[in-house]
Amino acid sequence: MVVALKYGVSQEDIKNIVNDLEKLGVKVDFSMGANQAVLGLVGDTTVINAEALQANRFVEKVIRVQEPYKRVNRVFHPLDTMLEIKREGAGFADGVSKIGGGALGIIAGPCSVETRGQVIEIAQAVKKAGAGFLRGGAFKPRTSPYAFQGMGGAGIDILVEAKKQCGLPIVTELMEISQLELFEDVDIIQVGARNMQNFNLLKELGRSRKPVLLKRGMASTMTELLMAAEYVMAGGNDKIILCERGLRGFDTFTRNVLDLAIVPMLKKKTHLPVIVDPSHATGLAWMVPAMSKAAIAAGADGIIVEVHNDPEHALCDGEQSLTPEVFAGMMTTLRKYAEIEGKTIS
Amino acid sequence: MVVALKYGVSQEDIKNIVNDLEKLGVKVDFSMGANQAVLGLVGDTTVINAEALQANRFVEKVIRVQEPYKRVNRVFHPLDTMLEIKREGAGFADGVSKIGGGALGIIAGPCSVETRGQVIEIAQAVKKAGAGFLRGGAFKPRTSPYAFQGMGGAGIDILVEAKKQCGLPIVTELMEISQLELFEDVDIIQVGARNMQNFNLLKELGRSRKPVLLKRGMASTMTELLMAAEYVMAGGNDKIILCERGLRGFDTFTRNVLDLAIVPMLKKKTHLPVIVDPSHATGLAWMVPAMSKAAIAAGADGIIVEVHNDPEHALCDGEQSLTPEVFAGMMTTLRKYAEIEGKTIS
Amino acid sequence: MVVALKYGVSQEDIKNIVNDLEKLGVKVDFSMGANQAVLGLVGDTTVINAEALQANRFVEKVIRVQEPYKRVNRVFHPLDTMLEIKREGAGFADGVSKIGGGALGIIAGPCSVETRGQVIEIAQAVKKAGAGFLRGGAFKPRTSPYAFQGMGGAGIDILVEAKKQCGLPIVTELMEISQLELFEDVDIIQVGARNMQNFNLLKELGRSRKPVLLKRGMASTMTELLMAAEYVMAGGNDKIILCERGLRGFDTFTRNVLDLAIVPMLKKKTHLPVIVDPSHATGLAWMVPAMSKAAIAAGADGIIVEVHNDPEHALCDGEQSLTPEVFAGMMTTLRKYAEIEGKTIS
Amino acid sequence: MVVALKYGVSQEDIKNIVNDLEKLGVKVDFSMGANQAVLGLVGDTTVINAEALQANRFVEKVIRVQEPYKRVNRVFHPLDTMLEIKREGAGFADGVSKIGGGALGIIAGPCSVETRGQVIEIAQAVKKAGAGFLRGGAFKPRTSPYAFQGMGGAGIDILVEAKKQCGLPIVTELMEISQLELFEDVDIIQVGARNMQNFNLLKELGRSRKPVLLKRGMASTMTELLMAAEYVMAGGNDKIILCERGLRGFDTFTRNVLDLAIVPMLKKKTHLPVIVDPSHATGLAWMVPAMSKAAIAAGADGIIVEVHNDPEHALCDGEQSLTPEVFAGMMTTLRKYAEIEGKTIS
Repeated sequence: MVVALKYGVSQEDIKNIVNDLEKLGVKVDFSMGANQAVLGLVGDTTVINAEALQANRFVEKVIRVQEPYKRVNRVFHPLDTMLEIKREGAGFADGVSKIGGGALGIIAGPCSVETRGQVIEIAQAVKKAGAGFLRGGAFKPRTSPYAFQGMGGAGIDILVEAKKQCGLPIVTELMEISQLELFEDVDIIQVGARNMQNFNLLKELGRSRKPVLLKRGMASTMTELLMAAEYVMAGGNDKIILCERGLRGFDTFTRNVLDLAIVPMLKKKTHLPVIVDPSHATGLAWMVPAMSKAAIAAGADGIIVEVHNDPEHALCDGEQSLTPEVFAGMMTTLRKYAEIEGKTIS
Repeated sequence: MVVALKYGVSQEDIKNIVNDLEKLGVKVDFSMGANQAVLGLVGDTTVINAEALQANRFVEKVIRVQEPYKRVNRVFHPLDTMLEIKREGAGFADGVSKIGGGALGIIAGPCSVETRGQVIEIAQAVKKAGAGFLRGGAFKPRTSPYAFQGMGGAGIDILVEAKKQCGLPIVTELMEISQLELFEDVDIIQVGARNMQNFNLLKELGRSRKPVLLKRGMASTMTELLMAAEYVMAGGNDKIILCERGLRGFDTFTRNVLDLAIVPMLKKKTHLPVIVDPSHATGLAWMVPAMSKAAIAAGADGIIVEVHNDPEHALCDGEQSLTPEVFAGMMTTLRKYAEIEGKTIS
Repeated sequence: MVVALKYGVSQEDIKNIVNDLEKLGVKVDFSMGANQAVLGLVGDTTVINAEALQANRFVEKVIRVQEPYKRVNRVFHPLDTMLEIKREGAGFADGVSKIGGGALGIIAGPCSVETRGQVIEIAQAVKKAGAGFLRGGAFKPRTSPYAFQGMGGAGIDILVEAKKQCGLPIVTELMEISQLELFEDVDIIQVGARNMQNFNLLKELGRSRKPVLLKRGMASTMTELLMAAEYVMAGGNDKIILCERGLRGFDTFTRNVLDLAIVPMLKKKTHLPVIVDPSHATGLAWMVPAMSKAAIAAGADGIIVEVHNDPEHALCDGEQSLTPEVFAGMMTTLRKYAEIEGKTIS
Repeated sequence: MVVALKYGVSQEDIKNIVNDLEKLGVKVDFSMGANQAVLGLVGDTTVINAEALQANRFVEKVIRVQEPYKRVNRVFHPLDTMLEIKREGAGFADGVSKIGGGALGIIAGPCSVETRGQVIEIAQAVKKAGAGFLRGGAFKPRTSPYAFQGMGGAGIDILVEAKKQCGLPIVTELMEISQLELFEDVDIIQVGARNMQNFNLLKELGRSRKPVLLKRGMASTMTELLMAAEYVMAGGNDKIILCERGLRGFDTFTRNVLDLAIVPMLKKKTHLPVIVDPSHATGLAWMVPAMSKAAIAAGADGIIVEVHNDPEHALCDGEQSLTPEVFAGMMTTLRKYAEIEGKTIS
């Protein structure tokens, strides 16, 4: 941490600041220029309250040099984290679905769980095409209180039944801590973009042992995303998948601005697997194959996409859902991309 | 709602779409141009699933003409909503604090509750200067899991004691439903920017009878803010204060971009009171007086500002906290502005 | 300037970097922590190519502590710059229009010059109401090549005639260097938001002696705005007015996001006068009075607003133009605000 | 174009509006709902001044259904535009460099032209690796007036000599109309992001017959980019390449936010070739290969990248320049991607 003091701070005031800082256990290197004193703080600077320091009347600027996250930081954990989930159900017990460390995880399924028949039909179709995980929304965050809010617990029951029938681990969104008891048979708990900084929820998931799929908020920085993951890891849960799903932007040709450059940067900064959601990012089904390919090309460890057997009659987000046929075609191309990138689709 | 169909859709397909829509109870006016058919839907179009309609392969564009919110809409509720909260405590029982309908509500206090002495000292100072409400954070949403997370329930106890000592109604943030039982003696429940679309929390607050101070998310549209308020009102709670606190922006000279133009627009669109938080918006105490004046000039019904008796040693956000002296000086100027605007500071 | 090196850089490599830097004439203070070396560069660091330095394979981060602008910097020029322009024309020769240093400059007039009658009628109306300057567009930057592009030189002739008739100095936009010869009788040359970083144009205006009204680009940082002004001042022209006119944003309720907090920050960073354009910022005439008041409250040295005698038939931006009556009413209120702020409207 | 009127507009006022509109040559279909009249305008609605119409006191909302661009619109020009430029110089006369219509154009070279030796060395290296075009900046748009502004005409001379030596067509940036006479031997004229809406420059380039590489402004919408291209095409020049180079964003881990989803959308909306600049978008050389692959995967017709033989000593943007070795390695991978996409690298 570097602290630039204001012009003309007296030697005595500088000495007092240095003393205060050293009491916190950091070493302070001092550099006096013609105009301005600069302090270099070394040691564990996470103990320093940068905001309070910035409020000091002698301080011009406080600059963090080191990252504020530890457990998710690749510096302290150089190897890729890889998630492996055993498949369940009669006849699938040998299978395993993987994300990270060279395995591309393909998560597919409907935006909302609507009926038993719909989910099972889609599950079997996406599995056949090569998906490793089944997604589906039971609890739905909707902008309007008058819109369909999801089937809730009954939706989770349908997902669990689909898992038994096709063997794919299931991914579904948790909106509130009290719903957690319904997630016993869910394999990966999704935290939506709007909840990325719902810190109580993150702490609770840190106490869980279930993998967490954490979506980046639509105006969150990369550091905020990593700090949100740090909340989960600080609680003891290191099974986290990060997901880019598009930023809020000023243009309207896509629903959000898919920030694919975060993929290689996250891969550099953290050991956690990173996936991309091209369905929510673009909001347009016809764009999903192009942006899925781009995600893999950028180095993502997988994608999460919406597939619906009847998009025109979907209760939610039909516009962005692929048909099973288009999904299968896309998977054929993605396998070629995976091969170039030296990755496997399980 | 207006639905523009694609070029060259056949008469029969148009007829089918019109039939489907009319089954939902809306009337469909049909306009055929040289190139393109346009449908005008009239009646209660909130029953229409615009997303599913957009997914229809014959549809080019779906455009909402009417607002998607009802209860918060000024069209159906032309008069200003005004909140009045009786002051409590020995010697204050006649007093009342107001926001809206010509009354400027001034909410002031420390970012975080730290000690009993600190809160009572600040409470008395801001009351003397003319604040109508005391704010203070007991549960603190912090980006880092390693930062001070607030005193929790003990912090609320301190706020309640300060209320008894000085009479001011208290405002503090709720981060999670399970905390609600600790908020019995809190007068106004604040929902933070990161929780603006925590829909379960909003539904729960709709069932409460306590006033809710709802902060705009840092990348939320005006309509999303109003829809969040609609969640609360749909549950039966019409005591809501909206708060602009700055948008995430690309520049760094302030913490956020204070979007003051939302104030007159919200005043036009909704009957709910609208206040501004210049402390979080700018992150810089010296800017708070200028932006507080600008907020009142733009038509706000009040402000919420951070005041701390020792900003340099604040555990949180010291950089943006006013001293009681600066706050008192600012209040003197704000009274002049209020007079020009024909408003009162209670 | 502070340069943090990467982990584990050898003593010899550090020595080489320090030597290279000292050859450029800066002094390098060296601070070695447990993990990382930090260099503090003191002296005239504007000679350092920060980008090249950042490209060095041993460098982790380069951080500027000092501002990159000099001539526009208030540090080196503490007193406010004030622009005074003598009024011309029979009977007005004693008058002077001012902006800055306690004088609020009110610039008003039509978006586009359309006819002689229109401009003179509006000029007389805004003058009567208290405007100090007449604005009007002769060359119009339009998104579409098929939209009205302005009257060009003939428009300037009309503005000059209006100046003779009413005495107000005129402000109009220059889009290209070759148009400069037509601007002989123009009093203030406006550089539009889209041209804020048209560096050749800025250099040319630096060689001019005419005042320049420089609008902030719709996604420009404060520093970029000040650097654009620095281009003009570096050429020898110190008569510059800065103008905030709204940022590109993600919401649609106003055309742009008016960033009023830049006003107090610019007033702190630079000696140049700062005005606000609420007409282009909001795009809505009914919002202009509220945002004009807010601009003055935030500390602006003036405003530039669109006034049209027949907004519904304006060839450009009718939606955001005030009628002369509304403008006059607004001026009455602004005078009260000016009085509180201790400023004068000439 | 659809015009929604306000509530309660009288039949007579509606009739007047319809009459006014029909005088402009469009047909007006009328749809009266329970609450609100909606007009559907059919015919050539580019003659309608939407802004003036929006200013009408009876109008609630004006909505464009059709695109405002014509010549760049794929609807009226379904086949891909393909640019082919013959290579010059002894021994290269049979060669041709292509962009669009299945040909991936790879444009590579230094940010700034620095010396004859540097440019020729880089030109030969990138040609050998498979680039089809040589880029290099002679006139440089720099934020600071004190930064290196490019070699100007002497830089163009060096580029032309490099063309003679290696045969590659050259691409360089024009900042101002008066520089045009120096561009006689330049093959593709680049318009930088800051000049995307320099309408006078665009008009002048419309009169030229040279291909134009038009970069998207850092806060420009897709429609604004297409309208900028429409300015050039309206002047008679249909040789235009569009380039995505990143948006201004709130995060700092990359210089800009690369908006790759614009690639498939532009390919749908326009017949013009679309390329991507990953060097300026990310600002980080190590990210360029990943984002170049992603660009090709998203459907781009090419890329423009910075290559420098000595990035640490580059006068400009060294941090984002590839070494020739890394560029060559990247090209090997891009050829595999091109093959999957069924495209060729000439």
